[in-house]
Amino acid sequence: MKKKLTLIKVGGKIVEEDASLQKLLDDFAALDGCKVLVHGGGRSATRLAEQLGIKSQMVNGRRITDAETLRVVTMVYGGLVNKNIVAGLQARGVNALGLTGADMDVIHSVKRPVQDIDYGFVGDVKRVDASLLGDLIDKGVVPVMAPLTHDGEGHLLNTNADTIAGETAKALAALFDVTLIYCFEKKGVLRDELDENSVIHSMDEADFRRLVGEGVIQGGMIPKLENAFEALNAGVSGVIITLASEINSQGGTHIRK
Amino acid sequence: MKKKLTLIKVGGKIVEEDASLQKLLDDFAALDGCKVLVHGGGRSATRLAEQLGIKSQMVNGRRITDAETLRVVTMVYGGLVNKNIVAGLQARGVNALGLTGADMDVIHSVKRPVQDIDYGFVGDVKRVDASLLGDLIDKGVVPVMAPLTHDGEGHLLNTNADTIAGETAKALAALFDVTLIYCFEKKGVLRDELDENSVIHSMDEADFRRLVGEGVIQGGMIPKLENAFEALNAGVSGVIITLASEINSQGGTHIRK
Repeated sequence: MKKKLTLIKVGGKIVEEDASLQKLLDDFAALDGCKVLVHGGGRSATRLAEQLGIKSQMVNGRRITDAETLRVVTMVYGGLVNKNIVAGLQARGVNALGLTGADMDVIHSVKRPVQDIDYGFVGDVKRVDASLLGDLIDKGVVPVMAPLTHDGEGHLLNTNADTIAGETAKALAALFDVTLIYCFEKKGVLRDELDENSVIHSMDEADFRRLVGEGVIQGGMIPKLENAFEALNAGVSGVIITLASEINSQGGTHIRK
Repeated sequence: MKKKLTLIKVGGKIVEEDASLQKLLDDFAALDGCKVLVHGGGRSATRLAEQLGIKSQMVNGRRITDAETLRVVTMVYGGLVNKNIVAGLQARGVNALGLTGADMDVIHSVKRPVQDIDYGFVGDVKRVDASLLGDLIDKGVVPVMAPLTHDGEGHLLNTNADTIAGETAKALAALFDVTLIYCFEKKGVLRDELDENSVIHSMDEADFRRLVGEGVIQGGMIPKLENAFEALNAGVSGVIITLASEINSQGGTHIRK
């Protein structure tokens, strides 16, 4: 039987404010079994870019990453945010290892082709090599993954943290019984956007199609859920969408095949 | 018989200028056997601090590291410099893994006690745990170490790269036949500071004491060589002081017991 592994993806806001970061690290440290943390860091990147006089340009929520911006995100995601999480977890007895996709060639990507928009040094994930990662997890190491990958030609690439979480979960599913938890700012997928207590507790793909048809699920939640079903179809055991403060509860929206 | 391992320490200047960095990565990639790279990054840290309006204060060549400066070195050493080296080595077929001392709890340090000078968030190395590191190296992984450690209480600490190299070499000597190469800006230890060709090719501890007595070796070279003999006495097979461009030659000053 495969060991259980929980892969948690948290956005920038949670890891960038000290109080919410400390709370997250406490909750994450309390999780049983094998685990992986994938983090963002966009707000800190925007702040550093501002301080350096570099303009942050976002298109559809994605950062246009020119050479200067790539330096900023490499410093913030790969250095500041990642290493502070690692040190904070070590203080809690969690043997964390901070990684970008370049480290041990874990995530190989390709620079996004220019179509309507030139996103610059942004990577689309090509493959995740989970073999060395799996060995380390098996030995009790807890990978902490920054949203950066590489193209194998010496270039780092800014890469969406949701995508890194999904692709890594899929690759690890060959070795572990993986639950993927996407933390976001609501308690789960809501039946009524204005009612925080209208969480849909469980959803399969048929429910999803129906709810999209009824207009209950819309906007950015659609690709998020499509990714969740893709992960399930690729062998991930369960996907949960919930608040970061609820990763140890049974709350949130549980997505199943 | 133990496998051969070469641990190379390079200063900031070499890894911070693109042409010298690319040359170093070519040379490092060409090294046979197990290997580890320890790097600095001080000039880039000073530059970023300047851009952010943070004053860099150096005492005896050491950076006074207040909270703001710690953020800067975490970004520059742990992010920018480290991850670019990792990506550059991956492009050369070297399976690099970027690490600070916090990652996998590899280097535990204590904040330097305040005596005459308060160095701030600067760490003195307490112990190196080479067990997981040794496993990874055995599997072909090449650690790339940034000059940052942690205190086990959630704090990163700015740590001298020469010290990291020496302490890591000693810890790895239990598992490998280690040669430690300190790269610096001269061809080796010079008999005459003004003559680049006066390299002392070989030196044991008796030679060293004699040369210090004669005034041939002085200044910053004395602690460097004392560290070298300490490493040899702790099981490191050989220490070489040379130019970064000479790591594949038999040049430089070879220090032996």
